[in-house]
Amino acid sequence: MSKTYLYSEIAENLAEQIRNGSLQEGDKLPSVRMLCAEYEVSMNTAKRVFLELEAQSLIYSKPQSGYFVSSLSYKDLPLPEESNPILLANQCAPNDILQKVYANIGREDILLLSYTVAYGDMLPIAQLKKEIVQATRALPTGGVQYERVEGNVNLRRMVAMRSLSWGAHLKEDDIITTNGGMNAVSLCLIALSKPGDTVAIESPCYPGILQLALGLGLKVFELPTNPNTGVKVEALREVASKIDICILISNYNTPVGSCMPDENKKEIVELLAKHDIPLIEDDVYGDLCFSGHRPNCCKTYDTTGNVLWCSSISKTLAPGFRVGWVAPGKYKDKVLKKKLVHSISSSALEQEAVANFMKSGKYDKHLRQLRKRLYQNYQNYANVVKQSFPKNIKICQPQGGLSLWIEFGEEIDTIALYDAAIKRGISIAPGRMFTLQDQYNNSMRLCFGLSWSSNLESKLKQIGILAKQLEKLNS
Amino acid sequence: MSKTYLYSEIAENLAEQIRNGSLQEGDKLPSVRMLCAEYEVSMNTAKRVFLELEAQSLIYSKPQSGYFVSSLSYKDLPLPEESNPILLANQCAPNDILQKVYANIGREDILLLSYTVAYGDMLPIAQLKKEIVQATRALPTGGVQYERVEGNVNLRRMVAMRSLSWGAHLKEDDIITTNGGMNAVSLCLIALSKPGDTVAIESPCYPGILQLALGLGLKVFELPTNPNTGVKVEALREVASKIDICILISNYNTPVGSCMPDENKKEIVELLAKHDIPLIEDDVYGDLCFSGHRPNCCKTYDTTGNVLWCSSISKTLAPGFRVGWVAPGKYKDKVLKKKLVHSISSSALEQEAVANFMKSGKYDKHLRQLRKRLYQNYQNYANVVKQSFPKNIKICQPQGGLSLWIEFGEEIDTIALYDAAIKRGISIAPGRMFTLQDQYNNSMRLCFGLSWSSNLESKLKQIGILAKQLEKLNS
Repeated sequence: MSKTYLYSEIAENLAEQIRNGSLQEGDKLPSVRMLCAEYEVSMNTAKRVFLELEAQSLIYSKPQSGYFVSSLSYKDLPLPEESNPILLANQCAPNDILQKVYANIGREDILLLSYTVAYGDMLPIAQLKKEIVQATRALPTGGVQYERVEGNVNLRRMVAMRSLSWGAHLKEDDIITTNGGMNAVSLCLIALSKPGDTVAIESPCYPGILQLALGLGLKVFELPTNPNTGVKVEALREVASKIDICILISNYNTPVGSCMPDENKKEIVELLAKHDIPLIEDDVYGDLCFSGHRPNCCKTYDTTGNVLWCSSISKTLAPGFRVGWVAPGKYKDKVLKKKLVHSISSSALEQEAVANFMKSGKYDKHLRQLRKRLYQNYQNYANVVKQSFPKNIKICQPQGGLSLWIEFGEEIDTIALYDAAIKRGISIAPGRMFTLQDQYNNSMRLCFGLSWSSNLESKLKQIGILAKQLEKLNS
Repeated sequence: MSKTYLYSEIAENLAEQIRNGSLQEGDKLPSVRMLCAEYEVSMNTAKRVFLELEAQSLIYSKPQSGYFVSSLSYKDLPLPEESNPILLANQCAPNDILQKVYANIGREDILLLSYTVAYGDMLPIAQLKKEIVQATRALPTGGVQYERVEGNVNLRRMVAMRSLSWGAHLKEDDIITTNGGMNAVSLCLIALSKPGDTVAIESPCYPGILQLALGLGLKVFELPTNPNTGVKVEALREVASKIDICILISNYNTPVGSCMPDENKKEIVELLAKHDIPLIEDDVYGDLCFSGHRPNCCKTYDTTGNVLWCSSISKTLAPGFRVGWVAPGKYKDKVLKKKLVHSISSSALEQEAVANFMKSGKYDKHLRQLRKRLYQNYQNYANVVKQSFPKNIKICQPQGGLSLWIEFGEEIDTIALYDAAIKRGISIAPGRMFTLQDQYNNSMRLCFGLSWSSNLESKLKQIGILAKQLEKLNS
């Protein structure tokens, strides 16, 4: 594992206090000298702590006075309400808008705020290129021949080892690799559902899951979801007798960014096990915690093998590699069979490269940097929203992930906003994409996985201007 | 394009005459001197022609007498009859035996005659490793970022260009890349079928297709199939009003190795278009023609966009890369949407590497060598079967591909043969895998994509010995 610098640990401590409110806007920080004494470090180290926090926009310096906690004025902005979808299975897919938005994947002439991926210099591209070259040389047949259906053993071993950090104790044999996280969810759902079954999900929900379920002939039950704590446990309890399967993005979900508290995770796992309802847990954002403390998963509390834990490196490291995995618990044989039938095996090369990247400690180092930059991005986005968006805005407060969910006043239709923004080379994700019901029409999701720049800042402001124009038009 | 040597062209001419029977067993070949005169080549070139044919076991030399056409004594062996499945949709999957056989994928301690792939030095592994390294360097983001849903543009361009050689005129925009050929078929079937639909297939049929169809809740109609010319057109005509979709492996199919004549392809395409039944054409073996003349596809005769042509390089170049594609005709939007939902995008790296390998001419060069070796392997296998297997054997006569379908007398159950063989480190594919009905119990498929060796030869003989023991036991 790569070493952590002392200054960076101390900075993280202070950052955590700012994030959790122990240190508030305008609070004075200890002086350099005090920091030296408190942590028993050198002057140089103490100075680097402040430079680090300043670089993250968390503090600012006043000449002759010292360092102060920055204004996080966006923190006044209210949270959206808990969602309140109709509790009925329901099939009205927003096909037109999905088609429009997803047609932009991979385009380079558009600022893509519409998909939750990290872009450009947020990803360690040069390092990964080297890793691929090495994997090509190291693999006995260069990845040219089929590997076992379960997938690359080194990757499965690394994923198992990393599961210790969130309280699971997976073994390599518990894991099957897949062509990315969505492919893992897809194989699980194909393996465990039959047409006509009902699947329960969060609302709003990642559109890929909605489309997948509809495509397999499933009925979809959208559940009330809290913007901080995720799906409402009581709601799930209420519908438990009417559903056959459940899919949840437990940590920093998209679009609202909620993270289920441990007690909710535990309760849901027990509830679903009792009713023998399999839980497909999509945990692709779990490693993107701002605080550095990686949250547990539902899988952590799974004692019966009823949780199918799906994840990938698509959100954290290399979307284009299509490297994901699933720990399907007691459903392993079923999922393995579906992988065989739908794609025979997966590509060994990228799996081996990712495994080596993890093994060398480079992945953890990269995660530390990425988390910091994402948190900073989130703050920058939120500040622009506060300053340049219409006044009656509501905004989620994610503690990790890549998604910022923004709710406008009711006079703003975000599909109209999409149409106006795309003409200016900006792609956003309108709220209607995230539901099968007639709701979230005045919400949108922005991805904050892009490298911060003045161009990005001005484009975000432009969205605000467009929103204000729409507001005027319709009021 | 890489150059072809003169000697190799002349050798191919003569080989073709031997294969098609113009030159028969024991026939004397022209002398070296005569060959020089006929083709206006040097003595050295003429000598290399004979060495080449000798190396392919097609001819042998008698001292002082010259060269003679080798004994292809296996040619006396009778063909299996046309298959005669019950014409009823039917769902009895051979799960146990499938599970047993497929659990061996990627194992290195077993001689894998059970899957149709080319192995080891049949594949240009070192060249492909270089190609990957170059692609990693050449791709702007090293394949780390998502690419467009349609897939790598260079690969789609090369596939389109190559389609000219079999009479199609595809353009890059007609093509979507996939995670291998089976993934292409899977996406098409998911896009076009709904549970309860009926799909028509050849019988015997590739087990992956049977499993895929059952898994999607489809009913399966097995059609009578001729070991040389493939599915019976009349049979398809008869059931056309009862089926919703059709999947055919048109060229060198597995397991029987049949190749549909052009007139059958044309007739079937017209028939299905008339009834508005989509045809998913699986053409993964088309490039593996022994003769060097690549057969047309059903897609060649598709004037309405009703044929979804699927192929890959899994059988010809690099199974582990998971690079395939589909030209879905008028169903392109539907298939594209399913690709997005089930795996978002595909891995750019291997696609780029394969595209460059094609572009440089290395793929065609490799195909020429591979075809020769596969033909030679087929002959070697057939000779062992003739010499060492029970007397009342029937055997298919593929003109390409990787599959040899062998029918024993009725007293031999090939599942029992599998059990005996696997104990000796040999995996075969019992006939029952290839149907949902109670048939083909005395047939098996062997893959001849392995490098020929004395170990392989002795293992094949061992299968013969085991079969004879089973015969004795049960007669």
